[in-house]
Amino acid sequence: VLAILASPVLADPLPSWNEGATKAAIIEFVESVTDPALDSYVPEADRVATFDNDGTLWAEQPFYFQGIYALDVLKKKAEADPSILSSDVLKAAASGDIKGATAKGVEGLIEVGNISHAGMTVDQFQKDAREWLTTATHPTTGMHYADMTYQPMLELLSYLRDEGFTTYIVSGGGADFLRSFAQEAYGIPPAQVVGTEGDTKYEEVDGKMVLMKRGGVSFIDDKEGKPVGISRHIGQRPIFVAGNSDGDFAMLEYATSGEGPAFGLIVHHTDADREFAYDREGHIGVLSRGLDEAEKRGWHLVDMKNDWARIWSVPK
Amino acid sequence: VLAILASPVLADPLPSWNEGATKAAIIEFVESVTDPALDSYVPEADRVATFDNDGTLWAEQPFYFQGIYALDVLKKKAEADPSILSSDVLKAAASGDIKGATAKGVEGLIEVGNISHAGMTVDQFQKDAREWLTTATHPTTGMHYADMTYQPMLELLSYLRDEGFTTYIVSGGGADFLRSFAQEAYGIPPAQVVGTEGDTKYEEVDGKMVLMKRGGVSFIDDKEGKPVGISRHIGQRPIFVAGNSDGDFAMLEYATSGEGPAFGLIVHHTDADREFAYDREGHIGVLSRGLDEAEKRGWHLVDMKNDWARIWSVPK
Ligand SMILES: [Ca+2]
Ligand SMILES: [Ca+2]
Repeated sequence: VLAILASPVLADPLPSWNEGATKAAIIEFVESVTDPALDSYVPEADRVATFDNDGTLWAEQPFYFQGIYALDVLKKKAEADPSILSSDVLKAAASGDIKGATAKGVEGLIEVGNISHAGMTVDQFQKDAREWLTTATHPTTGMHYADMTYQPMLELLSYLRDEGFTTYIVSGGGADFLRSFAQEAYGIPPAQVVGTEGDTKYEEVDGKMVLMKRGGVSFIDDKEGKPVGISRHIGQRPIFVAGNSDGDFAMLEYATSGEGPAFGLIVHHTDADREFAYDREGHIGVLSRGLDEAEKRGWHLVDMKNDWARIWSVPK
Repeated sequence: VLAILASPVLADPLPSWNEGATKAAIIEFVESVTDPALDSYVPEADRVATFDNDGTLWAEQPFYFQGIYALDVLKKKAEADPSILSSDVLKAAASGDIKGATAKGVEGLIEVGNISHAGMTVDQFQKDAREWLTTATHPTTGMHYADMTYQPMLELLSYLRDEGFTTYIVSGGGADFLRSFAQEAYGIPPAQVVGTEGDTKYEEVDGKMVLMKRGGVSFIDDKEGKPVGISRHIGQRPIFVAGNSDGDFAMLEYATSGEGPAFGLIVHHTDADREFAYDREGHIGVLSRGLDEAEKRGWHLVDMKNDWARIWSVPK
């Protein structure tokens, strides 16, 4: 008994992951690239891990949380000045009609963003977003949006960092929005956030030089934009990539087509009871080509229902 | 004697800096933000330092080294196919006529870059740039370009990192070009390089997915663009900034107009014997407003001739 008590028992680095093929594959990969005695060893400087955010690190239903936030801001602004609702898209958005607001696709979102995410400094915007994320409540779970992060993924981020990886967010969401909560939610500092970029200008306001959000989008970090965003910000090919939709296909493909070892992970939303169940169809987070090609490409599918013992980082 | 030998003698962190006001101010600032007992203490996560590159970390005369490289590449390409020299700017550039090539300003440089820095993958470009920097020789010093980094600034970078700072390059030069040598020259990894960005596309070439440099510029990281580049990449206001020209004015102003402590440093090229002497006039690295306002704004001028005991990191 004493011998057992005295022996070093390594704590499970992924306690919210059920034992199974996915968890085993993650740990096996991490051990294979961190053991200097193995040919598969990767030095710390090259242990780059990139994570999609919406649907991968936190929930994204019924709509991207940043989108719900944008609609909320627009609604408040329109209450003060109804004349800003100068198009059908904006009218739909201000009434909370997500379908109407997104009927035009990304263009509609940009139109909403040009009003809801513009005309203030980056600092003001982030303060406002942080406030909203920690006080507004999600329509079906009743949780604060900031609490709807996935406990198993937080454990995975910590595990990788403990093993010498640098963890990045590479998201189609706005970089300024992500940075308003990424440090607190994920332990990911602002410089390790890659996202869609709005037009920001350095300019004088009331005699002070500030970084002002001007509306408009200068870079979309989604689909084929993700490898480009990685190249621009990180300048290295990741060896660990996690995503949840076909918007991550290019990033997964890029990471796993290098010469060295690489790991691709796809979070498959299979749990209608505890979270949401969706894949090939829908207005958000569509996963179809990824499902078709995951096996062939050696990517690992997370079955949320069976692989995760717990979903939320904060209990409901 | 024994007591002296046994007492802890702290090594000089900046041995190539002559004793004087500038060196003293740097050390005083670093000590003031790293001592947890002081009100001026700044936690490690906020110790962001940004450095201009050309004229600040390495030389920039008679012309930006990346520009000389671009002219060299263009010349070689034109030897194989003279028809690419379709404009006066390109003809001047290929003949090594810097004045003619830059008569149109940035536009001319972009025209040269569209041929010299395009049509290859990011990896190929960086391999080629690295090769050139370590084999081609500078017209007046006869040194390899990669060796023309400033020893005192390398010591400053190391000193700041030892004291918990994260050091970034924030340069008007191309990010891909900078990343080809920043790790080896400065100990700065690719993710900590912010620079001007070319258009890169993720696309299939010969059945392989690659990051292809397409020519064109999507972001210019100079002047008012530097605070914007910092916002986009780092997402935090730096507390230590070093530059050498009015192209760094906005970055210096941004860093030193926050609420907490901040340090601005301007490398003033005063040493015609050991390096080059220039400031208010010229085609490159013009420092005029910075000279006028440094004292008022509390920025520290490095007098290269008197403040630096040694210039080059590699002896001539
Ligand atoms: Ca997603
Ligand atoms: Ca410069």
